[in-house]
Amino acid sequence: MALIKKPVTGMRDILPAEMALRQYCLSVIRETYGRFGFTEIETPVAESLENLNSKQGGDNEKLIFRVLKRGEKLDLGSAKTADDVSDMGLRYDLTVPLVRYYAAHANELASPFKALQTGSVFRADRPQKGRYRQFTQCDIDIFGEKSTLAEIELILATTAAIGKLSFKDFRIRISDRRLLKAMASYCGFPEDKQDSVFITLDKLDKIGAEGVRKELAENGFAEESIEKCLALFTAGDEGGEDADAQIAALERFCLQIGAEETEEIRQDLCTIIRTVEGAKEADFRMVFDPTLVRGMGYYTGTIFEFSLPQFGSSCGGGGRYDKMVGLFTGQETPACGFSIGFERIVMILMEEGFRIPGEEEKSAWLIEKGMAPERMREILREAKEARDACQTVLVCGMNKNKKFQKEQLTSQGYTSFREFFRE
Amino acid sequence: MALIKKPVTGMRDILPAEMALRQYCLSVIRETYGRFGFTEIETPVAESLENLNSKQGGDNEKLIFRVLKRGEKLDLGSAKTADDVSDMGLRYDLTVPLVRYYAAHANELASPFKALQTGSVFRADRPQKGRYRQFTQCDIDIFGEKSTLAEIELILATTAAIGKLSFKDFRIRISDRRLLKAMASYCGFPEDKQDSVFITLDKLDKIGAEGVRKELAENGFAEESIEKCLALFTAGDEGGEDADAQIAALERFCLQIGAEETEEIRQDLCTIIRTVEGAKEADFRMVFDPTLVRGMGYYTGTIFEFSLPQFGSSCGGGGRYDKMVGLFTGQETPACGFSIGFERIVMILMEEGFRIPGEEEKSAWLIEKGMAPERMREILREAKEARDACQTVLVCGMNKNKKFQKEQLTSQGYTSFREFFRE
Repeated sequence: MALIKKPVTGMRDILPAEMALRQYCLSVIRETYGRFGFTEIETPVAESLENLNSKQGGDNEKLIFRVLKRGEKLDLGSAKTADDVSDMGLRYDLTVPLVRYYAAHANELASPFKALQTGSVFRADRPQKGRYRQFTQCDIDIFGEKSTLAEIELILATTAAIGKLSFKDFRIRISDRRLLKAMASYCGFPEDKQDSVFITLDKLDKIGAEGVRKELAENGFAEESIEKCLALFTAGDEGGEDADAQIAALERFCLQIGAEETEEIRQDLCTIIRTVEGAKEADFRMVFDPTLVRGMGYYTGTIFEFSLPQFGSSCGGGGRYDKMVGLFTGQETPACGFSIGFERIVMILMEEGFRIPGEEEKSAWLIEKGMAPERMREILREAKEARDACQTVLVCGMNKNKKFQKEQLTSQGYTSFREFFRE
Repeated sequence: MALIKKPVTGMRDILPAEMALRQYCLSVIRETYGRFGFTEIETPVAESLENLNSKQGGDNEKLIFRVLKRGEKLDLGSAKTADDVSDMGLRYDLTVPLVRYYAAHANELASPFKALQTGSVFRADRPQKGRYRQFTQCDIDIFGEKSTLAEIELILATTAAIGKLSFKDFRIRISDRRLLKAMASYCGFPEDKQDSVFITLDKLDKIGAEGVRKELAENGFAEESIEKCLALFTAGDEGGEDADAQIAALERFCLQIGAEETEEIRQDLCTIIRTVEGAKEADFRMVFDPTLVRGMGYYTGTIFEFSLPQFGSSCGGGGRYDKMVGLFTGQETPACGFSIGFERIVMILMEEGFRIPGEEEKSAWLIEKGMAPERMREILREAKEARDACQTVLVCGMNKNKKFQKEQLTSQGYTSFREFFRE
C-alpha cells in the first residue's frame, strides 16, 4: 500500500527557498524586538477548550481543531457532542495563550513584561488560495504599562522591524475603541446594538458609504443616526497626510462628537501620533482613521492596523485589551499588543523576488564515486577548514549527469564548484 | 468564571531565560548545519492517520494525538472507533513527515537533498518529570546518497554543532543493523524472532549480562544461542578507546561471526570511523558498539547514537533507512538521518548554568509617570540611536518600588540604568 504524499487538507509544506526567507524575516524581527527589550516566550500549541471557547476569540472559536480524548476517557458509546469526546484544542491565535501564560507566571516575569511570541496557529477555515489552516503569527505584547508608552513602543518596534525587511511608505492607521463608542452614542445608535454598527462600519473601504448606509438601514437603524454617522466619516477624508493634518482631523472629529467626553482619548492619540512621528526609524506615516474597528471583541482602548501600499488590506495590527488578564486572575492588568501578518509579509517578499542580504559564499564540492577513504579524509579536513572560515561547503557525490547537478546547485545559490576525482 | 491558568496536562510554558537559551542553541545548530549545506524545510504539525499509522513509528504509534473531524463529517451517532471520528493526527516525530515531504517534492529538491528540520512533535505519553507531551526535535537527513559520505557528513555536522554548544569528551557509538542480523544468525536465533532478541540486547547497559541472559531464556531462546551471543559482547569490552582500538574490536567481532558475510559492513564502519576521526572538529570519540540497537524498526544499515558524559543515556541518534521513501513512491531511495535530543541538550545546559556568549549590553531606561510628550519624544529618539548602535534599550515606566524593579531587571541581564524625571 502506497502512503499519502500530500500534506493534510489546508496545510502545506514549505520548500527550502521560502524557508530561508522565513528564517531571515524571523531573525530580523527577533533581533529588532530584542533591541527594544522584548523577551521571547513559548506556549504549547494546544490549550484547554474552556480557555479557547471563552468568547475572547470571536469567530475564530468556530474554527477550532479539537483533540480527541484518549484511552478510557474516550467513551464513544455515550458521546453526544464534540465536548464529550475532546479535551483540548489547537490554538487559533497567540493572544489567549499569552494571557494565560502571563496569569500563570506573573510572579516570575518582569514588570512591565514585554513578550515576543512567534508560532503556529490553527484555524479550520475552508481551504482557499493563500489561506492555510496552519500559519505563523508573530506578536509582541506589553503587560503592566498603563500609559501610551506601551502603544508607542509597540508601534516603534514593529515598524522598525518591517522597515528592516525593506518595506517603506506604509501606513499605521490608528483609532480607539472608546472613540467608536462615543461616536455611536453621539449618533444615537442604541448601546446594546453598537457592535453590529461597528461590524458594518468596518466594511467602509470595501462597500463604500452607500453600502454602509444600505446595510445599516437593513439592520433597522434610524435614518437620522445613519446620516449623522456617515457625515462624520466623509468629512474625515480631507486634509494632508502629515502628523499635523492627522492631529487636525482627530481634533475635528472629537469636537463634533463631544469635546469633553473624548478629551482623554484625544490626548492619548495625539501623544501617540506625535511621539511615533518624532522617534520613528522606518519610512511610514501615522494616519488617524475613525472607521478602524478591528474584529476582536476584547479591545478596550487604542486600536491600530498596518497596511502596505502593495497589499490593499491589513498586514497586521493590534491594540489595547485591559480586561483579558482579569478573566484569568480576577485582577485587571493593562495589556497591549501588536501582531505582524507574518504570512503576508513573506508572501509579498517572495512575489517581489526579495534577495536575502549578506549571504556567505556557497561552494559545492563534487566527489567522484568510490573515492579512497584516505583521500576522502583529506577532502573533508579541507572542508572543515573552509567551514571554520565561515564558508558554506556542500560535499556530495558527483552525479552521472554532472551538468544538470551543477545547474541545480546554481539555482540553490552555489556560486563555486570543485571536483574531486579518484587518482 | 475564572479561566484556567495552567497549560494543558503534560505540556508546558517556556520562561524567558530558557527560551533565550533555546533560541541560542537553535541558531548555533542552524548556522553549523547551514555551513554543511543542509537546507531547512518545514512540514505541518498534523499528518494523515494513514501515514502516522504505517508501522514506521514503532511504539510511538500508540501515542498519537488525534484531531476530531469537524462539521458534517463528525457523526457521533454511528461512530464505533477513534478512526470514525478523527481525520488526522499530530506528528510523533519528524521522520515520517520528512519522507512524505521528500516523496511529494523530490523533483523540486536538490540531489542529494540535505534537509534540516526543527519543530514540535507530540506524544500522548503518561506525564512524568522532564518528559513532556510536546517537545522539540532537531533532525538532519540526507536523501539520495548511497555511500558512507552520508553517515560521515551527518556525524561531522552534528558533532560540530554539539561541540560549539560547549560539549566535549562525548561519544558516538556506532554499529549496523545488518551486523546485528548477521550476529543473530551466527548465534542461531530463529530469523523471525530476531527483533525480540534485539529488544533484549538493547537493555544490556541497564540490566547487565545476567539480566539479558535471564530475559532471553524467559523468551524461550536456546541456551546455546544465548551463551554464544553473550560471549561476543563481553569480549567486545576490551581494548582502548582510540580509533585503532575500535577498528580492532570491530574486526575481531566480524571475524567471529563470519568474515565473508560481514566484509562490506566492516569496510563501511571502518571508513566512517577513520574518516570522522580524521576530519572531526569537536572533542569526541567514535566507539564501535555491537550492542547498539536503536528502537525504530525502519533502520536498514548503519545506526549511531550520541551520549554525553553528564547524561547516562542517549542524547540523540540516527541511522540509515533506505526503504522508507519507497513506501511513498514505490521507488527506493537511500536515506540517512541524525536527530539531536534537543530537550536534553537544553536541560543539561540549563542545569550547568550555561551563559549565552557575546550578549550585547542591555540598558534599562526608567521613565517617571506623567512625562510630557515632548520630553518623551526626545528620550525615545535617543533610545532609537542607541538601538541603531546595537544596544538593547528597554524603555519602561518607573515603578513605585524602584529598587525592586532594578533588582528584577538586573536578574534579567540589564547592566546599566538611566532614570528620567519630569522637569
